[in-house]
Amino acid sequence: MQKLTVALAERSYPIYIGSGLISHSLLSPHIKARQVMVVTNETVAPLYLEQLKQGLVGHQVDVVTLPDGEQFKNLEHLDRIFTALLSHRHNRTTTLIALGGGVVGDMTGFAAASYQRGVEFIQVPTTLLSQVDSSVGGKTGVNHPLGKNMIGAFYQPQAVIADTSVLSSLPSRELSAGLAEVIKYGLIYDPRFFEWLEQHMEGLRAGDEQLLAQAIHRSCEIKAEVVAEDERETGIRAWLNLGHTFGHAIETEMGYGNWLHGEAVGAGTMMAADLSMRLGWLKQQDVDRIRAILVAAGLPVLPPDSMSAERFCELMSVDKKVLDGQLRLVLLKSIGEATVTDQFPAALLQQTLSAGKLLGQITNT
Amino acid sequence: MQKLTVALAERSYPIYIGSGLISHSLLSPHIKARQVMVVTNETVAPLYLEQLKQGLVGHQVDVVTLPDGEQFKNLEHLDRIFTALLSHRHNRTTTLIALGGGVVGDMTGFAAASYQRGVEFIQVPTTLLSQVDSSVGGKTGVNHPLGKNMIGAFYQPQAVIADTSVLSSLPSRELSAGLAEVIKYGLIYDPRFFEWLEQHMEGLRAGDEQLLAQAIHRSCEIKAEVVAEDERETGIRAWLNLGHTFGHAIETEMGYGNWLHGEAVGAGTMMAADLSMRLGWLKQQDVDRIRAILVAAGLPVLPPDSMSAERFCELMSVDKKVLDGQLRLVLLKSIGEATVTDQFPAALLQQTLSAGKLLGQITNT
Repeated sequence: MQKLTVALAERSYPIYIGSGLISHSLLSPHIKARQVMVVTNETVAPLYLEQLKQGLVGHQVDVVTLPDGEQFKNLEHLDRIFTALLSHRHNRTTTLIALGGGVVGDMTGFAAASYQRGVEFIQVPTTLLSQVDSSVGGKTGVNHPLGKNMIGAFYQPQAVIADTSVLSSLPSRELSAGLAEVIKYGLIYDPRFFEWLEQHMEGLRAGDEQLLAQAIHRSCEIKAEVVAEDERETGIRAWLNLGHTFGHAIETEMGYGNWLHGEAVGAGTMMAADLSMRLGWLKQQDVDRIRAILVAAGLPVLPPDSMSAERFCELMSVDKKVLDGQLRLVLLKSIGEATVTDQFPAALLQQTLSAGKLLGQITNT
Repeated sequence: MQKLTVALAERSYPIYIGSGLISHSLLSPHIKARQVMVVTNETVAPLYLEQLKQGLVGHQVDVVTLPDGEQFKNLEHLDRIFTALLSHRHNRTTTLIALGGGVVGDMTGFAAASYQRGVEFIQVPTTLLSQVDSSVGGKTGVNHPLGKNMIGAFYQPQAVIADTSVLSSLPSRELSAGLAEVIKYGLIYDPRFFEWLEQHMEGLRAGDEQLLAQAIHRSCEIKAEVVAEDERETGIRAWLNLGHTFGHAIETEMGYGNWLHGEAVGAGTMMAADLSMRLGWLKQQDVDRIRAILVAAGLPVLPPDSMSAERFCELMSVDKKVLDGQLRLVLLKSIGEATVTDQFPAALLQQTLSAGKLLGQITNT
């Protein structure tokens, strides 16, 4: 087992990474009092709920099981968590445990932030994506019909338990979606890690637990460094959104859940790389490497055919990265270094946004 | 105009108190960017919205008007604020302005805390209750069918503008409800202020703006001192809940909006005083003074006839002041000094909870 500490201004918390951790008794030291509410979903509960409960003997354990899917990440289903907490008379000393992927983690975190104006929670992420992404950074929340992640809070867990053995039950499409975020960490922050990923992508996709543990550890480490420096996302934390502004537009257009978040980020990362090249920052060989690793990870490298440049513009203008009407994008200066900028000619963005032109650009290389 | 600064760890904000302040240009210096969303209700909008807008020239001003009443302080109506923000494409630099009473203030504050994980907001409270209570302390949130204020956040405004001239349009029942909280500040913290209130209750009820400004100023000052010492309610901040544990039970039982919050607090304060006397802390003459000032303020001093002791117990056990199943109450050591305790014989609480016995106790004196 590896242990990583996320250092924040007010307090720190540990991330445990290793095989078979769910059934270990890692939870108890992080639970303050008697009451525990496990929030999970219909897919994960049959697989891991009983294992998790083994570590909770002696507690009042209540469970709320949500339907599985991004389309249920909304205020209505958040309210189910509150109803469960109140029905079972959970008080301010209760601890919420998120057992599931990013949707469960985001909703449980926001429920913990808001229930009685704040109770404690622990993350037990069961997808690669949530292990490397939502387990660090304190972003919690739900979607609104008019925009993704528009309602939420910054709120930190007491601990995160990333059990690599759960990844064996993950559909390969979801493993790929998680790898999109792992690749991102290399791209924005660490060229050596990017190289390491290029070398080990086959083993990672095959579910090698040792390799996955290393990838998770380095990803969380990078995210923790970035977040510790910039908890409220006023500066470099925005780098973590590489590919996300384009990606969110794709997710919104296609309807939540049709494209996986990581898949949309994959295509979005390619679009960011494309624009970075048009701006003269990336070379053609850099873009080729990025495309190659995304393809090797099983990710799409093109936005949906059906999405016009106009539709992208419309959807991106409500993105949180838009300050006062000016679109800011996370782009790449080189492999291993990101930048946030609103200084790009509109014409170049238009070229990137046009899927056909992007297709031409990429397939011609 | 008086100005009071609420000093908090991370930052401070001003409360302006005076006559006719809404139409002054006090708002602008506290608005960060171009976009403003005014949240108000159907009662207040026709009276003060146009005045408020005079101070917002040059901004993109959008308005969401909620129905008036505590029964609309829920997630469903909170969502209307998010929908308005997203429909008008408000970004992270927007400022929300709460124009209304406590319900509007609590909902707007929570919407500001949650929209895009946090945007700025300004309070323009239009009731005495909200001027002396919700304008200081950062408690925001909504109700749940199973409990009051169960969903929310601690979140501070940029500024509070307490215009005393709006109190002339307030129904006398609502003025009385506000006075319940004003009296509370004297009871828990400042015996001299309590005496001053005894002397000036007639003028306050008659709407004397000078007296009201003084009462608001001292109330906010006391609350600010208490909150600055204990922002997260782990210690003395709980004193501010004098009468509230009993009062919330009354509100829940009677249905939100039938008893005004301040009325329930009035009766609840009397119950807390009664139990404090049974414990030997208050003297009979103290209880008489408390009853007299509540009556002079036009407040009920007895819980509803229909509420049994059993029903009180049931409703109070989900109150936020219950830690791990043990009921903690705010009681009075003397007029001007409160205490939080779970050390009281159950039999004495039972006597207090029985409305008939309380009635006998009080009318026999």
